[in-house]
Amino acid sequence: MRKVKITGLGLGIPAKKVSSEELEEKYGIPAGFSEKYSGVSSRYFAETESCAQLGALALHDAMRDAGITCSDLDLLISAAGSYDHPIPHQSALLKKEMNWGPNTIPVFDIDATCLSFVTALDVATDLIGSGRYRRIAIVSSEIASRTANPHAFETFTLFGDGAAAAIIEATEEDCGILTSRFETWEEGALHTIFPGGGLKNFYRDHPYDPVFFSFHMDGMKLLKLARKTLPAFVEHLFQGTGLQMADMDLIIPHQASKAGLALFRADFNLPESQLHNTLDTFGNCIAASIPITLCDAVRKGRVERGDTLLLIGSAAGFTLGGMVLKY
Amino acid sequence: MRKVKITGLGLGIPAKKVSSEELEEKYGIPAGFSEKYSGVSSRYFAETESCAQLGALALHDAMRDAGITCSDLDLLISAAGSYDHPIPHQSALLKKEMNWGPNTIPVFDIDATCLSFVTALDVATDLIGSGRYRRIAIVSSEIASRTANPHAFETFTLFGDGAAAAIIEATEEDCGILTSRFETWEEGALHTIFPGGGLKNFYRDHPYDPVFFSFHMDGMKLLKLARKTLPAFVEHLFQGTGLQMADMDLIIPHQASKAGLALFRADFNLPESQLHNTLDTFGNCIAASIPITLCDAVRKGRVERGDTLLLIGSAAGFTLGGMVLKY
Repeated sequence: MRKVKITGLGLGIPAKKVSSEELEEKYGIPAGFSEKYSGVSSRYFAETESCAQLGALALHDAMRDAGITCSDLDLLISAAGSYDHPIPHQSALLKKEMNWGPNTIPVFDIDATCLSFVTALDVATDLIGSGRYRRIAIVSSEIASRTANPHAFETFTLFGDGAAAAIIEATEEDCGILTSRFETWEEGALHTIFPGGGLKNFYRDHPYDPVFFSFHMDGMKLLKLARKTLPAFVEHLFQGTGLQMADMDLIIPHQASKAGLALFRADFNLPESQLHNTLDTFGNCIAASIPITLCDAVRKGRVERGDTLLLIGSAAGFTLGGMVLKY
Repeated sequence: MRKVKITGLGLGIPAKKVSSEELEEKYGIPAGFSEKYSGVSSRYFAETESCAQLGALALHDAMRDAGITCSDLDLLISAAGSYDHPIPHQSALLKKEMNWGPNTIPVFDIDATCLSFVTALDVATDLIGSGRYRRIAIVSSEIASRTANPHAFETFTLFGDGAAAAIIEATEEDCGILTSRFETWEEGALHTIFPGGGLKNFYRDHPYDPVFFSFHMDGMKLLKLARKTLPAFVEHLFQGTGLQMADMDLIIPHQASKAGLALFRADFNLPESQLHNTLDTFGNCIAASIPITLCDAVRKGRVERGDTLLLIGSAAGFTLGGMVLKY
């Protein structure tokens, strides 16, 4: 086991809660579509907040939870697909938003879209393991609503905005990462894509178009690829650990979609009680989904110290990621 | 020492070389401005290439240098500030460009703007140290020309495009990272900024404007902050190692600017022979600058196995980073 302890978790939730009824009415979406197809009855939209502001809310919350101040931190990692500006990297803007003054702990970003948090947790554990850092903050702050394709109900009703943060630290206690694994299938690289706005289709050369400058997801192709690749992936994840799905006290899946969660549960024959979900009230918050769901599970008393948790999900790329965590 | 060996280095250079004379003529810049103020006599501009394509060129080159194929790799990290699309992350697009078919090694991005490569090398060394990965590819591919503010000669003549890649692996040999350090000063967070195009000033709400949708750098403020912070930073970097500047066989600085390099050399009283620079022929290639310069130094025979190298630079953030590497 690679030892690490999550000593604080926090949330940064936008002020504006949006019900599916409101959304359906405003955008002429058939009534009931959202709950039925997306599984989301309400979500939060960042109407005024920036990624840095939501991230700072989450980080303040997690630091309160851990009982620490900025002088106790050695490193700040922003782990998300969203960003306020193309430059500087989001972690620098987040640190500025925290207003820590003369504190000079370093910052950098990790981006693996929806798996950014799990990737950062995995990486940060090795940074702690090498003895160079004792305590690291990981913040995932995502604003999906601003870039949603308003004509694609499937994605427009599915995504939500929000942030979550975790404080992790070196520990002598019996907790940490029992195993983790990530795999990327290039055949799915373009199943999720935001065509405009990067350097390939730069603004200068493309007049604003709400579809071209928005997030596209081929849900059917993603589901198909996930179902094809997940069984062997999970087998490899558990290989050599003596563990299996049934040993997981709680599974925290990425809140990809209603269909994705249902098929995952069916394909692995999992009782509903073994999973914790927040899709209904938060939507899919990209990289923030897994830590929001973990934080929610802990706060609702569904996780005890010593529990064995499985964090698992998919990301643009196409990547599958899984981590077995002794909490 | 955290053991790691750089077994391959490679370059991905755009086809189009642009002399300062051409640039000055085309954009009405006073003749001689570029060489005199930016220190750049020529650079490469990616007129047709994408970040993924340049990155793939560099990675092919580095893999040839290391004598490996994709099945020898365990992880691919994209370490840059540039990206072809906002989603998916750049490493997924790079992997697709490599066309490795069924290979499923994972990918993720690290972004610390100009210090992305050094940050990724630092992180990847701990991933190898924990025993989970044996061989990792790090690719920094940057296209600065497309987002340069055409009215700001200072930046327009300074930056260039290019990519570099490194293959690093576990080793029993006497090489690796002797020490490394990163510090971020939030007071400089906005000294380098790309105002438009992220979620804060989303394209929907801001008609295209070549200045707003471009990279801005307050060179004077950055120089001032770097000179204020560098002496203590370097002292802390060497602390406890028994090493000092004079022990460095070669220094590979970020190719920030002519003035930055000159002041660094003057402030630390370094002989010209102790530094390797590529500013003159590549310009500032953001995160690709340090690995391009390292690769150039190795290929020109300025680096021998066993040499002690200092990689050092600044990044948006404002961050200073340094790493002492036994090559």
